[in-house]
Amino acid sequence: MTAERLVVIGGDAAGMSAASQARRLKGPDELSITAFERGHFTSYSACGIPYWVGGDVERRDELIARTPEEHRARDIDLRMRTEVTEIDVAGQRLRSLDRESGETAWTGFDKLVIATGARPVRPSLPGMDAPGVHGVQTLDDGQALLDSLDRVGAVRADRAGPGSGVRRAVVVGAGYIGVEMAEAMLKRGFEVTVLNRGEQPMATLDPDMGRLVHDAMDALGITTVNRAEVTAIRTGPEGRVSAVETADSSYPADVVVLGIGVEPETALARAVGLPVGPHGGLLTDLSMRVAGHENIWAGGDCVEVLDLVAGRTRHIALGTHANKHGQIIGSNVAGGYGTFPGVVGTAVSKVCDLEIARTGLREKDARAVGLRFVTATIESTGRAGYYPGARPMTVKMLAEYRSGRLLGVQIVGRDGAAKRVDIAAVALTAGMTVERMTSLDLGYAPPFSPVWDPVLVAARKAVTAVREAGTA
Amino acid sequence: MTAERLVVIGGDAAGMSAASQARRLKGPDELSITAFERGHFTSYSACGIPYWVGGDVERRDELIARTPEEHRARDIDLRMRTEVTEIDVAGQRLRSLDRESGETAWTGFDKLVIATGARPVRPSLPGMDAPGVHGVQTLDDGQALLDSLDRVGAVRADRAGPGSGVRRAVVVGAGYIGVEMAEAMLKRGFEVTVLNRGEQPMATLDPDMGRLVHDAMDALGITTVNRAEVTAIRTGPEGRVSAVETADSSYPADVVVLGIGVEPETALARAVGLPVGPHGGLLTDLSMRVAGHENIWAGGDCVEVLDLVAGRTRHIALGTHANKHGQIIGSNVAGGYGTFPGVVGTAVSKVCDLEIARTGLREKDARAVGLRFVTATIESTGRAGYYPGARPMTVKMLAEYRSGRLLGVQIVGRDGAAKRVDIAAVALTAGMTVERMTSLDLGYAPPFSPVWDPVLVAARKAVTAVREAGTA
Repeated sequence: MTAERLVVIGGDAAGMSAASQARRLKGPDELSITAFERGHFTSYSACGIPYWVGGDVERRDELIARTPEEHRARDIDLRMRTEVTEIDVAGQRLRSLDRESGETAWTGFDKLVIATGARPVRPSLPGMDAPGVHGVQTLDDGQALLDSLDRVGAVRADRAGPGSGVRRAVVVGAGYIGVEMAEAMLKRGFEVTVLNRGEQPMATLDPDMGRLVHDAMDALGITTVNRAEVTAIRTGPEGRVSAVETADSSYPADVVVLGIGVEPETALARAVGLPVGPHGGLLTDLSMRVAGHENIWAGGDCVEVLDLVAGRTRHIALGTHANKHGQIIGSNVAGGYGTFPGVVGTAVSKVCDLEIARTGLREKDARAVGLRFVTATIESTGRAGYYPGARPMTVKMLAEYRSGRLLGVQIVGRDGAAKRVDIAAVALTAGMTVERMTSLDLGYAPPFSPVWDPVLVAARKAVTAVREAGTA
Repeated sequence: MTAERLVVIGGDAAGMSAASQARRLKGPDELSITAFERGHFTSYSACGIPYWVGGDVERRDELIARTPEEHRARDIDLRMRTEVTEIDVAGQRLRSLDRESGETAWTGFDKLVIATGARPVRPSLPGMDAPGVHGVQTLDDGQALLDSLDRVGAVRADRAGPGSGVRRAVVVGAGYIGVEMAEAMLKRGFEVTVLNRGEQPMATLDPDMGRLVHDAMDALGITTVNRAEVTAIRTGPEGRVSAVETADSSYPADVVVLGIGVEPETALARAVGLPVGPHGGLLTDLSMRVAGHENIWAGGDCVEVLDLVAGRTRHIALGTHANKHGQIIGSNVAGGYGTFPGVVGTAVSKVCDLEIARTGLREKDARAVGLRFVTATIESTGRAGYYPGARPMTVKMLAEYRSGRLLGVQIVGRDGAAKRVDIAAVALTAGMTVERMTSLDLGYAPPFSPVWDPVLVAARKAVTAVREAGTA
């Protein structure tokens, strides 16, 4: 018997989860597994980079869940620093380039997994490639940024004198990565300015909730500039970044961090006509098989996922989805069974002690798919009001007009705000109405919740809003 | 027009929530509201008493959500220290006793709300009424205990000498109140012994999970004695408690706290033949109306509630249910509409930094209602493993044999363990299978969760257990 040949493109969350799960189900006699990774690392937590840069996580290697050696010990033929440059779909083979030796080779496959991830959006502006301008997408990026911080620190120390100790970081973008990197730079002792193109930071929230994040960042000493469109990066005499220019102003910078977001890395797949959706991600069926291709699967940051609330696909680059995709693909390629039904759009983050969470649809998402809705916003606390450490929490809820079906929840607060969004994530998955949510049997004890959990208070207010809208 | 007469028996969570909600919907011209409370306080958080005794909450009045004066300012005729002694159902009136003046009176009603709460189980053993033996059901109880602690502190200080500084507290019972009071006594500087009748502390968990609580309490310096049946309270020369006796041993005690649980207070209702269930609580319909009585409602700790997972009624004394009942009753008596569909049995608690949570059925609950099931227990952490402060968390999941329907979840751990049970509470409410749960879109970011949330890890293991049981 000849072993079936599984080939995986991409050695991070989705790709190596798929390889590992397939290996769990089938031994090397039945299934050979080859994986190509163009970078230096496998199976690492990109989401952890801000905490490594900020110093909460001490060593880079703590972010690596499994090293190449560990994968190889499990009979996965992992080719590091090797980039796949071409897929021959009909010929069931692919061409790869060894970035160390420069050699190319063809490798045949019976089954192919595409897990090429996402690439950071990097606007083509003057100075964007100057030393001191950093993305934070990969471990290599993180290391380069840390090296840059050391350099800046050293430079500034050399020049010690009145006022010269101030080091300035400009973060471009105020989404998850932007606000997390703002925290990291603050922790590294920088004066931090966040340049945000939108009306408020955290465009994944409605602007009224983003405003709360803005206020909290102010209070933390982070300057946020909204409606700021970066036009150029200015460099100093040594060629290093010196300032970030916008249409209206100029912001001095010793270091610049780009947190503008990512887009699916699908050049390879598109070159051979694999189907991509409106957001540029590969389109798969429920088993994560690429639409129209019996022997090709795709998962992780390079695919679009079904938004179960909107009934449309979205692109969401998030490790938790990538891991699920990999698990499902690994099962399916090895004769098991698994499906990925879709997402409800849950995301959590923090800036210092401020927790930010969302799930489901924002107002503009709901409008975009033709849903009419009501909103309810309440303030409460994460613990009983009398319990030490009780801090404010704002919950905004969207419910469908008439039906009262939950459409989305956004939470900004402290002390247990973020993971409370899971209540709404499950309720969205189940298609619950806000009326049904008012009687949810949620955990109550004074250290963990007021007697009415903030989510219940929001649901009660949403019920009233639905009723009033229905009779208006 | 004569105002309709609403009368409420019991001035705490359920009763005063009902009165307040009714008043919100109808003014005094339409509805007169009279409420009787035999104690000194209204609308207070009994769940907060352990934290007041332990010193986390400084003042008793912080536990009071609304004073008698505040209720009266909202046109609720509140009669404090006045006990209802008899209900005349046919005559639509009740008799009350003013505990200050000793006077009795009849009051007529058109609609009646029974919210008489629960009374602590207090075994009739020798010495049970000795000074230094305390329940912690009411604010009066809490004050008496605090006075007792002051007295004990003073006595021991007087006797200052080698070793004499040790003060000992014995807590009888290892349920929620027991473990919370153990923490409170520890914080007050006592050597704490918990006497537990069961196999492990926290009988609301399966014994394997209770064992984890036991171990953690050991590590906190709390001695837990399992299978300990109290036989007597021994008193010293001044008549004060000196030790607690069990069949096997004797435990010296300067103070004894009873945390044995409560039972519905329904003597008044039973005397007139109102229906009670197998756990001694009043039986109501979905609108919280007492079964068979058009104009009588009941809610809070004196009623039984439908367990949506087991399909049977249970008695659960918990402020969050009482508040919901009150809200619903208040709406219904005032011409609005609300129902209480039931509970899934969620409860959370903590001992120092150990968090304890459960929802749904334990193994013995499932067996008792004829459900066949599998279990899955996993260990994970509340944050990404590399994120500072990541601490272990154990999740146990029960799923129905063949169908894979979620039946229950128990969590013991630190750092975000308790409120994670809400994920399972909503999933139980929605009747989800553990298979469906594996793809739940839960909030992920390193400070808040590993990339696979512990609940997802447990669900994955439960899926395997269901499959293996089905093919066995």
